[in-house]
Amino acid sequence: MSTRRTAGTVATVTDVPESMRCSVLRGAGELEVRERAVPSPAHGEVLVRISAVGTCGSDVHYYRHGRIGKYVVREPMVLGHEPAGRIVAVGEGVDPSRTGQRVSLEPGVPCRRCRWCHEGRYNLCPDIVFFATPPVDGAFAEYVAIADDFAHPVPDSVSDDAAALLEPLSVALWANAKAGTGLGSHVLVAGAGPIGLLVARVAQVRGATRVVISDPDAGRRRFAAGYGVGETVDPGATTLDREVDAFLDCSGAPPAVTAGIAAVRPGGSVTLVGMGADEMTLPVSAMQSREISLTGTFRYANTWPAAVALAASGEIELDRLVTSHVGLDDVGTALSPDPAQVKVVVTPGA
Amino acid sequence: MSTRRTAGTVATVTDVPESMRCSVLRGAGELEVRERAVPSPAHGEVLVRISAVGTCGSDVHYYRHGRIGKYVVREPMVLGHEPAGRIVAVGEGVDPSRTGQRVSLEPGVPCRRCRWCHEGRYNLCPDIVFFATPPVDGAFAEYVAIADDFAHPVPDSVSDDAAALLEPLSVALWANAKAGTGLGSHVLVAGAGPIGLLVARVAQVRGATRVVISDPDAGRRRFAAGYGVGETVDPGATTLDREVDAFLDCSGAPPAVTAGIAAVRPGGSVTLVGMGADEMTLPVSAMQSREISLTGTFRYANTWPAAVALAASGEIELDRLVTSHVGLDDVGTALSPDPAQVKVVVTPGA
Amino acid sequence: MSTRRTAGTVATVTDVPESMRCSVLRGAGELEVRERAVPSPAHGEVLVRISAVGTCGSDVHYYRHGRIGKYVVREPMVLGHEPAGRIVAVGEGVDPSRTGQRVSLEPGVPCRRCRWCHEGRYNLCPDIVFFATPPVDGAFAEYVAIADDFAHPVPDSVSDDAAALLEPLSVALWANAKAGTGLGSHVLVAGAGPIGLLVARVAQVRGATRVVISDPDAGRRRFAAGYGVGETVDPGATTLDREVDAFLDCSGAPPAVTAGIAAVRPGGSVTLVGMGADEMTLPVSAMQSREISLTGTFRYANTWPAAVALAASGEIELDRLVTSHVGLDDVGTALSPDPAQVKVVVTPGA
Amino acid sequence: MSTRRTAGTVATVTDVPESMRCSVLRGAGELEVRERAVPSPAHGEVLVRISAVGTCGSDVHYYRHGRIGKYVVREPMVLGHEPAGRIVAVGEGVDPSRTGQRVSLEPGVPCRRCRWCHEGRYNLCPDIVFFATPPVDGAFAEYVAIADDFAHPVPDSVSDDAAALLEPLSVALWANAKAGTGLGSHVLVAGAGPIGLLVARVAQVRGATRVVISDPDAGRRRFAAGYGVGETVDPGATTLDREVDAFLDCSGAPPAVTAGIAAVRPGGSVTLVGMGADEMTLPVSAMQSREISLTGTFRYANTWPAAVALAASGEIELDRLVTSHVGLDDVGTALSPDPAQVKVVVTPGA
Repeated sequence: MSTRRTAGTVATVTDVPESMRCSVLRGAGELEVRERAVPSPAHGEVLVRISAVGTCGSDVHYYRHGRIGKYVVREPMVLGHEPAGRIVAVGEGVDPSRTGQRVSLEPGVPCRRCRWCHEGRYNLCPDIVFFATPPVDGAFAEYVAIADDFAHPVPDSVSDDAAALLEPLSVALWANAKAGTGLGSHVLVAGAGPIGLLVARVAQVRGATRVVISDPDAGRRRFAAGYGVGETVDPGATTLDREVDAFLDCSGAPPAVTAGIAAVRPGGSVTLVGMGADEMTLPVSAMQSREISLTGTFRYANTWPAAVALAASGEIELDRLVTSHVGLDDVGTALSPDPAQVKVVVTPGA
Repeated sequence: MSTRRTAGTVATVTDVPESMRCSVLRGAGELEVRERAVPSPAHGEVLVRISAVGTCGSDVHYYRHGRIGKYVVREPMVLGHEPAGRIVAVGEGVDPSRTGQRVSLEPGVPCRRCRWCHEGRYNLCPDIVFFATPPVDGAFAEYVAIADDFAHPVPDSVSDDAAALLEPLSVALWANAKAGTGLGSHVLVAGAGPIGLLVARVAQVRGATRVVISDPDAGRRRFAAGYGVGETVDPGATTLDREVDAFLDCSGAPPAVTAGIAAVRPGGSVTLVGMGADEMTLPVSAMQSREISLTGTFRYANTWPAAVALAASGEIELDRLVTSHVGLDDVGTALSPDPAQVKVVVTPGA
Repeated sequence: MSTRRTAGTVATVTDVPESMRCSVLRGAGELEVRERAVPSPAHGEVLVRISAVGTCGSDVHYYRHGRIGKYVVREPMVLGHEPAGRIVAVGEGVDPSRTGQRVSLEPGVPCRRCRWCHEGRYNLCPDIVFFATPPVDGAFAEYVAIADDFAHPVPDSVSDDAAALLEPLSVALWANAKAGTGLGSHVLVAGAGPIGLLVARVAQVRGATRVVISDPDAGRRRFAAGYGVGETVDPGATTLDREVDAFLDCSGAPPAVTAGIAAVRPGGSVTLVGMGADEMTLPVSAMQSREISLTGTFRYANTWPAAVALAASGEIELDRLVTSHVGLDDVGTALSPDPAQVKVVVTPGA
Repeated sequence: MSTRRTAGTVATVTDVPESMRCSVLRGAGELEVRERAVPSPAHGEVLVRISAVGTCGSDVHYYRHGRIGKYVVREPMVLGHEPAGRIVAVGEGVDPSRTGQRVSLEPGVPCRRCRWCHEGRYNLCPDIVFFATPPVDGAFAEYVAIADDFAHPVPDSVSDDAAALLEPLSVALWANAKAGTGLGSHVLVAGAGPIGLLVARVAQVRGATRVVISDPDAGRRRFAAGYGVGETVDPGATTLDREVDAFLDCSGAPPAVTAGIAAVRPGGSVTLVGMGADEMTLPVSAMQSREISLTGTFRYANTWPAAVALAASGEIELDRLVTSHVGLDDVGTALSPDPAQVKVVVTPGA
């Protein structure tokens, strides 16, 4: 029984050690596993033993380049922002009965006091503390502490992998909400990576009656077809009709964006989900005369309850996206591009 | 008493002649006044004697270039799409008591049968018949016939000039609705021409608590300040803060659009009202991370009732925008750029 | 070949006779089959040979009472407002190639000129001409003429019965749109008749993750369970939790409405679909402190495109709701309550 | 200089005493002024010296009955929930430069962690700590401590009285947002008390082009007319037309609600702002066939920024509503109904 955390911790389980292993990025291309002290859950926090963490394009980008735009890795930092695990201790002010609960972590905790937090758009909070965004550590670690309301309980019908993948599912839920997809929509998705696949699936769950996903890579199209996300098309070989209600770009590729906008019907929407170039040349005159709206999405807000429900019911099959698992020692492998992989999951506890 | 129209016309007044004068554009730079037959109001139409027609940038463009994009003046055509007048005859199926009514004309009559018409977004109707858009004649003429539900009654507190200017006011109402301006909004408008001025005024009427209008032209800024549209700024001499809720571009100028987008707060909106280049390079990455939405507006739908009410109550002072009047013989003068003019009105009946 | 309609009809098929059979309601309880002239399609209309017409509670009510509220059957009238068939002739102004097309009829044609029509809420048009609402005839007849944009094409994957049932499906689509059901919603539906079943199914298609349907009748609950609309409960034996996002009443029964409102979470919605008493006593204080909104729905607008898509894809199984068919001679049987029936379809052409 | 609060207080001004006077309600009709310890601002809180507190109908109700519904005054309690003042000390984690700032207090601090708080609808937070709601003390006291983000800065152009009255203005802002009033709306308000007056004024600021306020009391109608809230009518002597877009009830009187609903056009809205009976009999059938929506409002969320801007610009004149001031010793007088008063303000510091 750990007694170290007695002061700030009102309930623990017996197996919390004093130190843990985590995968630390020292700079571009430099990952190493280190021992660090297990964090103590502060007031309102829970301590979570991490079972699974999805890897994401931004992790890959930090690993390769040591930065994403203005965010630069200046101090050794832990990556990973798609975590799931089990609560092993709770801080003051947290219901002790949560100890033992399996949870999916929403990896950004906002300030709760600014305009955006008050208005329910906490993804825009300028003071949000977001996992794996310098200088904030992520979850390629055996334990993390997080505000208890951002540790969402999951039922046993949701696997550890699926609980981790509620994060990219949340990106897809948010993107669809912004895009206004709904019953009867004709939806075009560019990019058949994990986000594109989930965006397409969520559109179907919202009642879209025609969903088309385009990707120049034949392997990705095959996976998409097997995953059941509607029609798959090769953008180089297809002329899209112009009756799309909502186009969601998950590719970040300017040609895909241009082609997608051209396919949108008057009054339709364009939603930029994938990050790409800083600037793009857009057909504004056509967008005006057809009253097409365009928006970007940034993370998500208030998506976990629906995400949990969709995973629990099996409506969205997240486990099928996971093509391999690695331990903390092999995070570098997980973050190296491999076209044969869809989603690699890191298992810190393994 | 005209008897010519007896068949299709169930009520007339006594002074409708058989022919009328109208200003015809034969090609770029070539206007002439011709005699044409007065049209007969068809089933569901009214015949209107035109008292005032505002001139607009698109009229200027057709006069100078003989075309706007894909719309080319191939046959002699009447310009003018901001008309007001008085009903002098009604077609079958129209309440005869409307004869004598003063009206403002909504200059586009949609098909009423397509998806867009059914959904109330008739400005997107692909078959709309819109005044002064080749090959459809406009209103620089003594008489026009139009569907009776697009001839909106105005009370006597609305002058002929103001009744004509309900059209640009409608552009401003629609743009503000798309932009989501409202109570407490901080609004930035680029371009202090007639549309920009009205867009700014409508934002105020919708409850915006801070409205800034930017224009590089000192004379336009002076007029704007006198018109009471909030703060006026010189974009070359001002650094805008980044707290704008809604930016509406009424300039069509790419530098103004770029500067305006940079001034928008996270979650804010960009609305492109003015037509400019076919393509623009936009800061999509910043728009994504700040979840800024962008849309264009195309004309308007369902705006006349509010426009009439605002003009009738004096809340929006349209007469103050009119800086001169010309007769049908001088339409060419009205369509020649003159920085001293804000809005020139053509008076076919004068 | 009919020559009767030559003047107003630009295309026909060869088998349109001059007279037809229809079922006429002379007063409460008095139905008889009469011969009437086949109507001519006017400008913009199509003539449809009717294959299937669903029967509905309002038909039953007119048959039994000769009136619904202020709508009184004063002249012999044809009932039936859920029709499907095949276009056999078109009027002027209609694409002749539509002849032969299988169609589902949207049974109310609005005026197209009033505020409501302009705004896309044509179900509120005060001058709508609605089938089987005195004095307008309905579709228990071999042929009807209707505006061509209200005769919606259906693919062969949609049966005649399903094409007829797009009308109640439209009621369900509209009700769900008003209720704001969506991805992750917890929905409660009162009443497991055809409308309640479809309301529940549409909620599922819109992504509701929990749908509960309550009905005091065990047989209806069994049918609902077999139809797959989520959980079925007996309101007399169940205490509902208070976490419902959207409650839709399809029963018209005051106790069901009261119980349903009590089950709605703060900020949730109540939608009254079923017609019942003129007045109801509602818990307004609780609705205020929980900010619950309540609305009624009246028919539908712009629902057919999605309805066709859902039926065509098999997402909503309409044929399974049809429990029997009758010919024109047996409309009285079809309109007599029978608890063993879910939906009875009249087949005028049989 | 107070040293008492050194531990938790990082900045103070020199004049904070150790004890203060406050008006305490011991039970129905029993108010007395007592000395209590000045509270210490906790982490994230500010200490505010109260300059002005508006009195409200709920204060009056607690004073007279000792309860409102399920909320019962069991322990001596301080009333008053419309407070303004000046920050005299800040707790840990608060910018010390706020000391000295004039503020308007939003009197309910939510939990920040529940679904409603996350979604920006914190007025529905079940754990909100709301001033003057048993057992939470209010602001008829010389000092109160509150979370710093609920102490909204006001400029000098906003008087102490106006800063206090931002609370009822917030009620009006929220009600209008729920009602969907906007540019061109025709609005009916029942009840010309302070809330009704502000609801009507806010409707005007949002662009309503016709606002009618009804009240059976001639004196209130006179005040309303002088306050400039549009047309005033005597409900007993007027037949309302049926073209109201939004009806907002600020009377809580069932006959006013019934008459108001009857005046609403198809598709319009009914918003219940005033609390009245627990139950009301409503014309649900007419609400269904006209698709009228009804909602209640409960307090407000995210309204202060706009409220401050409207008061600062003089757009809404709050000072004109204040008809008298009393000190802490005379709270009982302030809470006794007096038809000659519109709004009585308590000045604890006087």
